[in-house]
Amino acid sequence: MSQQTAITPTREQDFPEWYQQVVKAADLAENSDVRGCMVIKPWGYGIWENMQRGLDGLFKATGHKNAYFPLFIPLSYLAKEAAHVEGFAKECAVVTHHRLVPDGKGGLKPDPESELAEPLVVRPTSETIIGATYAKWVQSYRDLPILINQWANVVRWEMRPRVFLRTAEFLWQEGHTAHETEAEARAETEQMLAVYAQFAREWLALPVFTGEKSAGERFPGAEQTLCIEAMVQDRKAIQAGTSHFLGQNFAKASGIQFVSRENKQEFAWTTSWGVSTRLIGTVIMAHGDDDGVILPPRIAPAQVVILPVAPKPEMREAVFAACDALAAKLRAQSYGGEAVRVEVDKRDLGGGQKSWEWIKRGVPVRVEIGPRDIEKGTVAVARRDRGHKEKAFPTAEEFVGGITATLGEIHATLMDRATMLRDANTVKIETKEEFTAFFTAKGKEISGGFAFAHWDGTAETEAEIKDALKVTIRCIPSDSPAEDGACVWSGRPSGRRVLFAKSY
Amino acid sequence: MSQQTAITPTREQDFPEWYQQVVKAADLAENSDVRGCMVIKPWGYGIWENMQRGLDGLFKATGHKNAYFPLFIPLSYLAKEAAHVEGFAKECAVVTHHRLVPDGKGGLKPDPESELAEPLVVRPTSETIIGATYAKWVQSYRDLPILINQWANVVRWEMRPRVFLRTAEFLWQEGHTAHETEAEARAETEQMLAVYAQFAREWLALPVFTGEKSAGERFPGAEQTLCIEAMVQDRKAIQAGTSHFLGQNFAKASGIQFVSRENKQEFAWTTSWGVSTRLIGTVIMAHGDDDGVILPPRIAPAQVVILPVAPKPEMREAVFAACDALAAKLRAQSYGGEAVRVEVDKRDLGGGQKSWEWIKRGVPVRVEIGPRDIEKGTVAVARRDRGHKEKAFPTAEEFVGGITATLGEIHATLMDRATMLRDANTVKIETKEEFTAFFTAKGKEISGGFAFAHWDGTAETEAEIKDALKVTIRCIPSDSPAEDGACVWSGRPSGRRVLFAKSY
Repeated sequence: MSQQTAITPTREQDFPEWYQQVVKAADLAENSDVRGCMVIKPWGYGIWENMQRGLDGLFKATGHKNAYFPLFIPLSYLAKEAAHVEGFAKECAVVTHHRLVPDGKGGLKPDPESELAEPLVVRPTSETIIGATYAKWVQSYRDLPILINQWANVVRWEMRPRVFLRTAEFLWQEGHTAHETEAEARAETEQMLAVYAQFAREWLALPVFTGEKSAGERFPGAEQTLCIEAMVQDRKAIQAGTSHFLGQNFAKASGIQFVSRENKQEFAWTTSWGVSTRLIGTVIMAHGDDDGVILPPRIAPAQVVILPVAPKPEMREAVFAACDALAAKLRAQSYGGEAVRVEVDKRDLGGGQKSWEWIKRGVPVRVEIGPRDIEKGTVAVARRDRGHKEKAFPTAEEFVGGITATLGEIHATLMDRATMLRDANTVKIETKEEFTAFFTAKGKEISGGFAFAHWDGTAETEAEIKDALKVTIRCIPSDSPAEDGACVWSGRPSGRRVLFAKSY
Repeated sequence: MSQQTAITPTREQDFPEWYQQVVKAADLAENSDVRGCMVIKPWGYGIWENMQRGLDGLFKATGHKNAYFPLFIPLSYLAKEAAHVEGFAKECAVVTHHRLVPDGKGGLKPDPESELAEPLVVRPTSETIIGATYAKWVQSYRDLPILINQWANVVRWEMRPRVFLRTAEFLWQEGHTAHETEAEARAETEQMLAVYAQFAREWLALPVFTGEKSAGERFPGAEQTLCIEAMVQDRKAIQAGTSHFLGQNFAKASGIQFVSRENKQEFAWTTSWGVSTRLIGTVIMAHGDDDGVILPPRIAPAQVVILPVAPKPEMREAVFAACDALAAKLRAQSYGGEAVRVEVDKRDLGGGQKSWEWIKRGVPVRVEIGPRDIEKGTVAVARRDRGHKEKAFPTAEEFVGGITATLGEIHATLMDRATMLRDANTVKIETKEEFTAFFTAKGKEISGGFAFAHWDGTAETEAEIKDALKVTIRCIPSDSPAEDGACVWSGRPSGRRVLFAKSY
């Protein structure tokens, strides 16, 4: 008989449904009544806050500052860059009126007299509105570079929403930089990709492949899109962050021009780069198990939860006091440069129920303290990366002294597991037959994984593969060596392997 | 001859224009091409980030957690609370379509086939959408209280926008709590008002009056609106934060019901409270002078700017090294519980130009280091709260050791000045003649200040005063004692003085 799990179905049984159940059980988010828009609940938002703090530190350390640009984009701005508008026109929320009036049936309707002369689009991304602003800011090469990031909400109308992964409204950051030279802009694009890869490793415990998107998968309007790609437990790929070299496309569309050192009028070179609340979905799918989420410690809203065990009411006060004292000692420790985050759960609920709530929510370390622990000076410690029945009983002092190391070990465990999963499911493939077999028939929604294979470099072959197998080129890896071979699909010559996978 | 100032006109000459010029000169924000929407530039956004961090700490210390709710509100939700919709219907941005198509003239138009069955309103505030969510979360008294805050953008269509003070889109936080009892909800409302007053004093160096709004000035749908009111230098009032006791109005409109301890179905009691980027405008007008902004140290993006003085190129490296070394020592100091924020301005610009840029931007402390300072081990220090020619020449060691105290002194100076201005311009008034005189004829746009006067408690009198003098009741002060008197306008009996002023 199989062991009972907190989440039904299990990952093996039905990965997509497991995901929805974990989001619910961990109290991370839920669908709102507004189609495609999610409510991010405190536990889920706490994860996002930690991600924000980590990323923001990395952005500032690389010379960027935050700013804020309008939510609305005039229709004509969006239309300035042809590929860009082509990419976003089908998913734009459009504001057409600025006032409501009674509809005569007890409700409201947009006031026809308040119709806007030019409709406004709720930003799906901000290249065009920011470009128009930079055009005013930049006169001379002395005004460059501009290195700005924005934390914001964006809207891309979504017909098949899925919480965190594909939502009509999501939260993200979008960096937008402008440079004097092509080389500088390309270096910025690469630098931010490296920042994302570092963040994935050091905060999310996620190994990622880095590389360039094929032309067909590029950001609309970009010359080059770099990306980080992670594997999650159904062996699909998820694009976890992108960094775009925009060439002079948006500078020309928006008129970002400057007088160069040689006293000539030139267009600036721009970049943009972003990650979003999709990262939360990525973490859930990469690290979760059949009991719920497992959070990498650096992004866990609470890294340690202390559970008072006080069966007799007369002991409550003493147990609570011991828990608070332990919490204070733990908070004086640090992990990843920040004070350890501790929660003491004093709610009047059964110990089993409480414990399972925190397991499902993925708190890295759970500690129980009862009257006998106080007597003995020990604590009962359970780690989320181990079985839920596995407990250790160190002295409180040992536990506090070792907490930084423990959190580090949990991070390392998650990183190791994710790396092993990825490596075990990443293969080189040479023939169309193998390729087709790899991407089919591995159980419900679970396919083979990542395939490094030769591609002839044509959009036609790329499209054929996508149509036949729903498999896409995730990236042309940065470190993929030159290697003569034959395209896995067309048999035509190829000089390099690319990374194929099914994806979110 | 008058001394030359960095900002033209001066505050005395034309306060509103002075404000616009300061916003520009300090590089804080600008109007965007989207009517009513501002671009918050890095220096302005840095102030907001510091305000956010300070407020967020106070919210969390009082038991609140952050979450995120949808940007869009279905029209029917907004209509659920009668007073609420009445208050916001006239200023709502309305989304009616979700796709764009070519308009046949080379541009785009909303796709008629993408018209939404129910239009969506861009949130002007989130009581209704959050209420609908809480209705799902709350079943039993055990689910209460809910103590949540949201950091978000909101849109209120604005016909006469003014950067930071009145903009169509602005950034804010909105707390939304739900409670079991009226007493708890009232206590929460009071608590958050106290938090705002504390934040105004300790972060913004702003003394504020606290009190209750008259019925006419209440938040649409609230039973009680509490507020903090600050005086700025044209002696007008600015409402800097509000905390609303919503009674059971929104709980009834949204169906937030729970089974009580007595096993009865009851409606929850809710509150909401918010402050916005308007606080940045408040700080500018409260503390700025004719040379630009003066930032209270706790919200200054840089608290100390170090300006290398290296007239001879061969000295540059040594001077830069000394500046970096000083910066490192300063960053090891702390103020207000955070590492001192230091910027070293190595740009290749004239010393005078650089210095004036930082004066206009309001950095609390400026330090110059040149070759002779290095020899002598001294630094040249100027404080933004003193004249721009006034410099001190401590040793570098003295300066570093005293920086925490210096920043504290600057905060205290700003607080003292603001308090003196307010006290000097706050009077008790007994007669209609005095009252009318007080609020007229004090130079362009500058009126008398704050008047504590008797009011008969009627909406009619309140409206008459507003029509006649553009003066409103700012609040019924929390600590205003019972006192028999005659209404300053109608002569009818009054039991208490209220605070009158012109306002933003």
